Amino acid sequence: MEPVLFYGVPHGCSFGSIVALEWLGQPYRLVRIDMLSKPDSDIFRRVTPLGATPALLLDDGEALTESFAILHNIAKRDLGRKLGFAQDTREFDRLNRMLSFLHTDFHSAFVLAWNAYKLAEDDPNREVLRAMAREKAARCYRYLQELISSREWLVGEDKTVADAYFIGIARWGEDLGLFDLKAEYPRLHEFQQKLEADKAVIFAHAIEEGWPAQSSGGFLGHIELDALSPRLAA
Amino acid sequence: MEPVLFYGVPHGCSFGSIVALEWLGQPYRLVRIDMLSKPDSDIFRRVTPLGATPALLLDDGEALTESFAILHNIAKRDLGRKLGFAQDTREFDRLNRMLSFLHTDFHSAFVLAWNAYKLAEDDPNREVLRAMAREKAARCYRYLQELISSREWLVGEDKTVADAYFIGIARWGEDLGLFDLKAEYPRLHEFQQKLEADKAVIFAHAIEEGWPAQSSGGFLGHIELDALSPRLAA
Ligand SMILES: N[C@@H](CCC(=O)N[C@@H](CS)C(=O)NCC(=O)O)C(=O)O
Ligand SMILES: N[C@@H](CCC(=O)N[C@@H](CS)C(=O)NCC(=O)O)C(=O)O
Repeated sequence: MEPVLFYGVPHGCSFGSIVALEWLGQPYRLVRIDMLSKPDSDIFRRVTPLGATPALLLDDGEALTESFAILHNIAKRDLGRKLGFAQDTREFDRLNRMLSFLHTDFHSAFVLAWNAYKLAEDDPNREVLRAMAREKAARCYRYLQELISSREWLVGEDKTVADAYFIGIARWGEDLGLFDLKAEYPRLHEFQQKLEADKAVIFAHAIEEGWPAQSSGGFLGHIELDALSPRLAA
Repeated sequence: MEPVLFYGVPHGCSFGSIVALEWLGQPYRLVRIDMLSKPDSDIFRRVTPLGATPALLLDDGEALTESFAILHNIAKRDLGRKLGFAQDTREFDRLNRMLSFLHTDFHSAFVLAWNAYKLAEDDPNREVLRAMAREKAARCYRYLQELISSREWLVGEDKTVADAYFIGIARWGEDLGLFDLKAEYPRLHEFQQKLEADKAVIFAHAIEEGWPAQSSGGFLGHIELDALSPRLAA
């Protein structure tokens, strides 16, 4: 059966996996998970023991977690699409390098600020965490802007799953009120704009917001968590 | 020419890449980087623009950063060793899942405490960061202990690059004075002990400490940063 992606809202890092699935162009379904009131469901816990999204229920019912692993899984379903690369190539290494940077340094910079978000408005630790987040994220934005100034896409001439993941994370700088990306990183902002104009990205925003969404890939619709029970591997 | 690994001391996450290189059994060299007084060197900056270790100078002079990418690069040099798996297998996904968990959640939990370490002894933020680190790391230790209770190695029946990376990071809980692993996570501690008895792990410790080190792989010796100039790709 077609794979099923569990995506988290609001504004989760699952965004990139939705974009990547659209780019792949093969059939898939979605399960929506509200991360602010996580489902108290046995199926949810079995699919993602750490309670994080994204998670991908594979064709045979095995569950895969970790965005990095999910993106690789999507890419290898059709290497001809060049969302990823064959393992024995140098491009494979370069893609891993970029994916790893985005999943470690870039993502974790913002996690500090998300943690701040959970503290009371007047908690002095809030500003400490936000300052740390800003410093770390600024290094990452600078690095990415430098790279993208001499390339079409993050890994080179091909649009890959790294670009899909990037566009779901890069927005957090503004979501969290830490940066004005257009003013501070204009060339990176331009690159974001290029991605924002992509059909798959427009689709992923609509899905997140719960608006009518026009798939340019193989989206077969949402499915309820409970309906997945027979699909789960033993 | 043989690949050259830049590893950071003291107690860096490069540790796992050294272990993986030993397990691979093919020729390689090492460059030692003191991360407390980073080299003011053009070669260093070109190899690792973000100033982080590990970094791997590949056979043709291209530099690869990000531990995740380096470990995959090492593994694919000889898939017969099963340090990693062919891209079209399910094991490839499972390895990515574990590597990603270790590089994101597990590593980043400790980064919070390393940040605390840089603050003054009486800075109140120190305890805030340490408490956050402890909570996050505890979830990870618990998860890993659960997994390892029903498996030989982190990904299954084969010892992979994930085990190599794990053993370099798991020690941080004690390095940072956050946990008594033997008392708190006894089965995970046993698994650590099994890895600590491995020749490659013993070798990596000796390398880090600057002691005489007995390679059971293809270690050809250290090399000075300056001597690498002719190796770097344009
Ligand atoms: N290491 C995981 C982390 C995923 C992650 O941080 N997910 C967030 C949403 S962006 C989440 O689920 N947070 C809620 C939680 O972990 O409880 C990955 O890279 O996929
Ligand atoms: N995302 C990188 C991070 C590597 C990392 O955190 N390296 C640490 C040593 S364990 C480091 O170099 N820290 C010093 C720095 O970044 O300035 C990776 O996974 O390889």
